[in-house]
Amino acid sequence: MGIKVTDVVKQLESPVENMESTVDSLLFGNGDDEVNGILVTFVASHFAIEHAKKIGANMIITHEGIFYSHNQNDKVLKNNEVYAEKLELIKNSGIAIYRFHDYIHKYTPDLITEGLIQRLEWDGYLERHNHTSSILAIPPMSGEKIVAYVKEKLSIPFVRVVGDLSLECARIGLTVGFRGGGETAIPLFEKENVDLIITGEGQEWETPEYIRDAGVQGKKKGLIMIGHAASEEPGMEYLAEKLKSYFPAIQTTFLSNENLIHAK
Amino acid sequence: MGIKVTDVVKQLESPVENMESTVDSLLFGNGDDEVNGILVTFVASHFAIEHAKKIGANMIITHEGIFYSHNQNDKVLKNNEVYAEKLELIKNSGIAIYRFHDYIHKYTPDLITEGLIQRLEWDGYLERHNHTSSILAIPPMSGEKIVAYVKEKLSIPFVRVVGDLSLECARIGLTVGFRGGGETAIPLFEKENVDLIITGEGQEWETPEYIRDAGVQGKKKGLIMIGHAASEEPGMEYLAEKLKSYFPAIQTTFLSNENLIHAK
Repeated sequence: MGIKVTDVVKQLESPVENMESTVDSLLFGNGDDEVNGILVTFVASHFAIEHAKKIGANMIITHEGIFYSHNQNDKVLKNNEVYAEKLELIKNSGIAIYRFHDYIHKYTPDLITEGLIQRLEWDGYLERHNHTSSILAIPPMSGEKIVAYVKEKLSIPFVRVVGDLSLECARIGLTVGFRGGGETAIPLFEKENVDLIITGEGQEWETPEYIRDAGVQGKKKGLIMIGHAASEEPGMEYLAEKLKSYFPAIQTTFLSNENLIHAK
Repeated sequence: MGIKVTDVVKQLESPVENMESTVDSLLFGNGDDEVNGILVTFVASHFAIEHAKKIGANMIITHEGIFYSHNQNDKVLKNNEVYAEKLELIKNSGIAIYRFHDYIHKYTPDLITEGLIQRLEWDGYLERHNHTSSILAIPPMSGEKIVAYVKEKLSIPFVRVVGDLSLECARIGLTVGFRGGGETAIPLFEKENVDLIITGEGQEWETPEYIRDAGVQGKKKGLIMIGHAASEEPGMEYLAEKLKSYFPAIQTTFLSNENLIHAK
């Protein structure tokens, strides 16, 4: 008897106490199906589903929602052709798709954040993981140098920056995904005394405007928005490595999505 | 007897039916004060408040919240030094600050959107204003040309783009501010058959991922994220012009904030 879809899901959720309210679930497919291969990706795009079919993976683990929303999006997508074609592809493929978002962020530490820190090769500089952020104490370097370093390590074409990046940075706050907003990021400047925050994305009128005001007051701070996918993909790739050790008999493949957003 | 702060507020809110739930209000200052001068700006930054003091304007009209949040943000900003210094500046200045967000978006048409269309010199191409978007039918040109055109008209250093911008675009959906998310933007591709959406900002995993999937399915679409401030500042400048005609006796000044976010 082989490993079932539900066995993989149980393994993934096992390090975390049962969550009553979560977006994580088996979106498509049959929990009793035997798993022939797993594709792990940041978001199960149309291309990712075709790719899973091609390589014979009958289970996909996706971090973000597959229909362009954190939650279900049925009203928006009613009579939508792109949605309909993707839905048909999924149903015809018989592939099981498991959304793995809330549980993986609840790992101790958050596996998504841990994956990013490893990719940046900053494991040795970790001071502390907080609930929605991590604090790093790195050898001091300018914001500009950090920008170049991060772009190279993550293979991304650009980042968005706020503040004076000639600033020498030693304490860094790291928040993945859409945790660049004021509620998560601003307290790190004050309570954690960070020089710079590196985040995925966040509302433009929140943390950036805070940095503008701080700068005018002579309190220099910096922000680097590396992009949502760039901040969370390394964590999903890290997960794929873990799955290989949990289920060595199953072929597990990580698919990196192409850079989607470009600066012009 | 001169014009009071409340007179200006009444004039601003007069084209719209009374809203029961709104973030718009007199955040600071005294409604009975006589207005000596008005400063209009996208967000009343620390610098903007100092500038109002300098030019003798005792009323500021701000579109976005002044403490780094759409709503009140007291918990986040407790014991925050940047907040405390800005608050002290405001209180010492005696300047009245009026938040003008929901009402101006409720104008018929939305004055913020109208200001952007005028700045783009696309008034002649307007097909229709919807509730949260406007549809334009422009002389066909490539997405790349539109990028260059928009950057030049708005004096912005970069935009973020998604999709194949060699695409010839004739129908454009315009959504200002944080209306680039899937709920607002995605239906425009299907229901309004637009080639391209120009927006302020929006969640990266929503509309961009939709465009990715559409492209793989052979349905080419494009997205240009010009930035939240870039999409709404022209509307606030347009408002300043209107105020000059409503209150010719009052010195009204528009302050454009410096570009805050840069691509590196």
